Amino acid sequence: MNTAAIEHRPDSEFAYLYREGVLHLRLRTARTDVANVNLLCGDPYLLTVDHWEQKPVAMTRTLSTDLYDFWTAEVTAKHQRLAYGFQITGIDGTQIFYGDHGLAPIDQAAQSYFKMPYFHEIDRFKAPEWVTQTVWYQIFPERFANGDATNDPQGTLAWSTESPQAQDFYGGDLQGVIDHLDHFVDLGINGLYFCPLFKAHSNHKYDTIDYLEIDPQFGDKQLFRQLVTECHQRGIKVMLDAVFNHLGDQSRQWQDVLQHGADSQYADWFHIHEFPVSYQPGRNFEDATDISYDVFATTPHMPKLNTANPAVQAYLLKIARYWIEEFDIDAWRLDVADEVDHHFWKQFRQVCDAAKPDFYILGEVWHSAQSWLNGDEFSAVMNYAYTDAIVDGLVKKTIPLPKMISEINNQLMLYRDQTNQVQFNVLDSHDTARLLTVAQGNRDLMRQALAFTYLQPGVPCLYYGDEYGMTGEFDPGCRKCMVWAPANQDLAMYQFVKALIALRHRYQSLLSAGQLRLTIDDQQPTLLKLTRTLDGQQINGWFNMGQTSVSVAATSPVLLSNQISIDQQQIQIAPDGFMVF
Amino acid sequence: MNTAAIEHRPDSEFAYLYREGVLHLRLRTARTDVANVNLLCGDPYLLTVDHWEQKPVAMTRTLSTDLYDFWTAEVTAKHQRLAYGFQITGIDGTQIFYGDHGLAPIDQAAQSYFKMPYFHEIDRFKAPEWVTQTVWYQIFPERFANGDATNDPQGTLAWSTESPQAQDFYGGDLQGVIDHLDHFVDLGINGLYFCPLFKAHSNHKYDTIDYLEIDPQFGDKQLFRQLVTECHQRGIKVMLDAVFNHLGDQSRQWQDVLQHGADSQYADWFHIHEFPVSYQPGRNFEDATDISYDVFATTPHMPKLNTANPAVQAYLLKIARYWIEEFDIDAWRLDVADEVDHHFWKQFRQVCDAAKPDFYILGEVWHSAQSWLNGDEFSAVMNYAYTDAIVDGLVKKTIPLPKMISEINNQLMLYRDQTNQVQFNVLDSHDTARLLTVAQGNRDLMRQALAFTYLQPGVPCLYYGDEYGMTGEFDPGCRKCMVWAPANQDLAMYQFVKALIALRHRYQSLLSAGQLRLTIDDQQPTLLKLTRTLDGQQINGWFNMGQTSVSVAATSPVLLSNQISIDQQQIQIAPDGFMVF
Repeated sequence: MNTAAIEHRPDSEFAYLYREGVLHLRLRTARTDVANVNLLCGDPYLLTVDHWEQKPVAMTRTLSTDLYDFWTAEVTAKHQRLAYGFQITGIDGTQIFYGDHGLAPIDQAAQSYFKMPYFHEIDRFKAPEWVTQTVWYQIFPERFANGDATNDPQGTLAWSTESPQAQDFYGGDLQGVIDHLDHFVDLGINGLYFCPLFKAHSNHKYDTIDYLEIDPQFGDKQLFRQLVTECHQRGIKVMLDAVFNHLGDQSRQWQDVLQHGADSQYADWFHIHEFPVSYQPGRNFEDATDISYDVFATTPHMPKLNTANPAVQAYLLKIARYWIEEFDIDAWRLDVADEVDHHFWKQFRQVCDAAKPDFYILGEVWHSAQSWLNGDEFSAVMNYAYTDAIVDGLVKKTIPLPKMISEINNQLMLYRDQTNQVQFNVLDSHDTARLLTVAQGNRDLMRQALAFTYLQPGVPCLYYGDEYGMTGEFDPGCRKCMVWAPANQDLAMYQFVKALIALRHRYQSLLSAGQLRLTIDDQQPTLLKLTRTLDGQQINGWFNMGQTSVSVAATSPVLLSNQISIDQQQIQIAPDGFMVF
Repeated sequence: MNTAAIEHRPDSEFAYLYREGVLHLRLRTARTDVANVNLLCGDPYLLTVDHWEQKPVAMTRTLSTDLYDFWTAEVTAKHQRLAYGFQITGIDGTQIFYGDHGLAPIDQAAQSYFKMPYFHEIDRFKAPEWVTQTVWYQIFPERFANGDATNDPQGTLAWSTESPQAQDFYGGDLQGVIDHLDHFVDLGINGLYFCPLFKAHSNHKYDTIDYLEIDPQFGDKQLFRQLVTECHQRGIKVMLDAVFNHLGDQSRQWQDVLQHGADSQYADWFHIHEFPVSYQPGRNFEDATDISYDVFATTPHMPKLNTANPAVQAYLLKIARYWIEEFDIDAWRLDVADEVDHHFWKQFRQVCDAAKPDFYILGEVWHSAQSWLNGDEFSAVMNYAYTDAIVDGLVKKTIPLPKMISEINNQLMLYRDQTNQVQFNVLDSHDTARLLTVAQGNRDLMRQALAFTYLQPGVPCLYYGDEYGMTGEFDPGCRKCMVWAPANQDLAMYQFVKALIALRHRYQSLLSAGQLRLTIDDQQPTLLKLTRTLDGQQINGWFNMGQTSVSVAATSPVLLSNQISIDQQQIQIAPDGFMVF
């Protein structure tokens, strides 16, 4: 047995409260190395009374990666406290015990159990139930719809199907969103994620000038209040983008620093190494060298906020509270969230929880994010690490299918099950090329990738215009104006996306909480099979990843498909086709 | 290469700020499986500018366990942010890259680096410097010294060398401690850890009645204030025991519950499943069954506090603040700390930090404690998991030396380096048998174990009376009256302990921060060698663990020893002997 591969970490994603009083345990072993695992568990103070060490509970092998098998169990405890360890039997017949002091002979379990000392509901990672029921839609406000020409900035260009330049303005605004609320209702969208709406300099508004004002190019607070109200009337949640890592250099705080240098009352709001602040212009507007203060990336126009400064904390927390209490927003998306300190996010979480129950906090973290997802900071992260595997495996085909499956399962094992159910799954966004462009215009492939993603545990987010088959390279190409002219809309794609969203809603609880299993068909190695199972229910998705059709036996009614043909008892799935049943 | 054994966890004890701006990185590989590891690291936004992926930094193999080697590196970053990954070369010549998406071919590092997104000083685990310089002394107040007969409880027994019964009283008090402050000064003790002093029912006082009163059997607040002042005048820190997991059943809160049942204003202060509260008496006073409320262990007299209740939080936090602000205590030791929720401890930490800089918070956790030691809860834990290995390996000899070394190194790799330096190392306490008893009366063995422990990174704590060679089995035997009659004192042991403490103080920075290396001599397999190295300095401890003498070459001057004889160029270390040089 490969004993060095065995892993468990108490009080982490390996051992956590899933629901109140219900503990989930995971154990990692080397792939196909272990025949079975028994869990020994019971009350830490009643071992000699209950003799639970003699009552093993079989664990289930649920997910595997290229290197590992993961074993899981769900347990409860009468007194809300648990000692536990693992009896592991290798496929070679070796038997060992694994506990808090590592490996031991199978008969020497005592004294070294892992502990979940008490099942504290207050420490449980709580995922808002409504988020699992949500299909999100991301709006880049400057490009979604121009509903009010009177607030257009100077030099606003005519609405266009062309790829924009980095500094262009097209006049998109909140009235434009309000004008199209029926669009979301028709599609089945019940959550809107807005890129920043606050007063800022650029078209993307990530360089905030004033967090307490709606950008006048987008409208005003009254209009925003109306937008939230109308969304809520339609059952649509509203998420705003909080850019708390940095300020825009046009903000009064940074301008004050420019004016007063070290004497500015805001000097400690930033990470300034030398006064007066300075930099050497770089390759483009958003690049510089020798910057005498910390910034986002290399852009001198986004000075990094010192969130360890209590004044900055108070300022940002007031903003967090303000938009919840005054405008009833349902969620904050946190820009560059990984570069802000944990200390601040813990305060932020408390403020949001106090302001509104079941509030959703979504952090932008592109890499492993365990330390933000322990229940006292974020609810979820932008799940790029997960969807990258889908884009690479299904769309770009730069990694083989087994690697994609491995990476998906690896990502799922980084987080608690309830976290996975609210992770924010984006196949594209304002920070990536559009899906159809990555799919090189192959609309069947785009449908296949969308269908596969909507069958995952996390919640899907549609990037504006994907429903009409919009294309676009990486920023600024992905930020084209929304296609409202029917002649330019892919209405078949719209109908497909609408049907897919309806499927997601209809089977939501199964698609959120069902056990995922991804396999490659034994006989047809290009046939990717997905199943989700929960309480005896099951839903399946079969995907043809190859260059030729695959043939499968028809069984249950097909719920959604593309590129399939049914002939008597056989179903042909063409390349890039799929069926859900 | 055993790729399944390779492990790194970002933003954890594998990747953390050690000092301001200084990051420590660890990587785990299978033991003796990897020839070398190179770290690739640099600014996440400047990869294409700096090309740091072409500038590998060699990592050092520092500690090993029976299963693993650990590799470490210390790095800084100009812009306080780092992307990093590992180039690993197996002893079989295999080369791979390990990053945030797992293993990849050696030339495919890009896109999957781990991240330390920003070096936030506010998130750094801060260990109080003074703790590293402290040698603690644990006082069980009822048994240390009776300085004031007027406060003796009814039925107080005469001071005695006999083993006490569980419910006995002997009259120990604060005046007794004050009377013996010179004892601590002479020994070199500069930290006193008091088992509970607050008003309670039992002799151990873990069943608190009133956290805001000194138990009248021990004295009063004025006397306690005098004690703290006199300690501080002598450079001695004071740590009190906070029992926040449960209350005593004689407390007014629990009595109110007994009287008013579900209508009590304190009904929600506890975890009560059914009113009126009830239980079936069990095997002894501290045991019961069918208890209708949650308790500590199985004792009906210690109802568990509901620390998720804001009223309870406010009450306990007020207590935490009160004894710091009013009496200037330096540390809290937290009883049954693992069974109280993280949410509460995070608040507790903030209150203590606000009340006094460099405050030390010591949690009672007997098992792996990573989730309490991330910088926002405890400073350290009662390091039983570490010292158990020493007791088992050196004293009881129930585990072989390689296993002891493995377990010690394993424990060190569970926590950040600065955490290890303030871990609270106890070879015995009020909750274990005494060291000399475990050593079956072998005083040389006791000295050997003490010396080995005082050379470890964590801070040692002497249990009252060990300096005079007191004996005692598990509670109540370990809680005998302190031996003040010279005839009963082992004065040689006293001199030894005093010399050992002096050695600890003299080489404190080396013994706190020096790299530990434990090896078994190639030629003489019972000769255990310890070295600590820091900035070119080194201190060594050699321990004879066998039944016959070992002979070693004399080199540096011997700083402390027991059971050695020096003959020209050779030193003979007798069984249970040791030398530090």
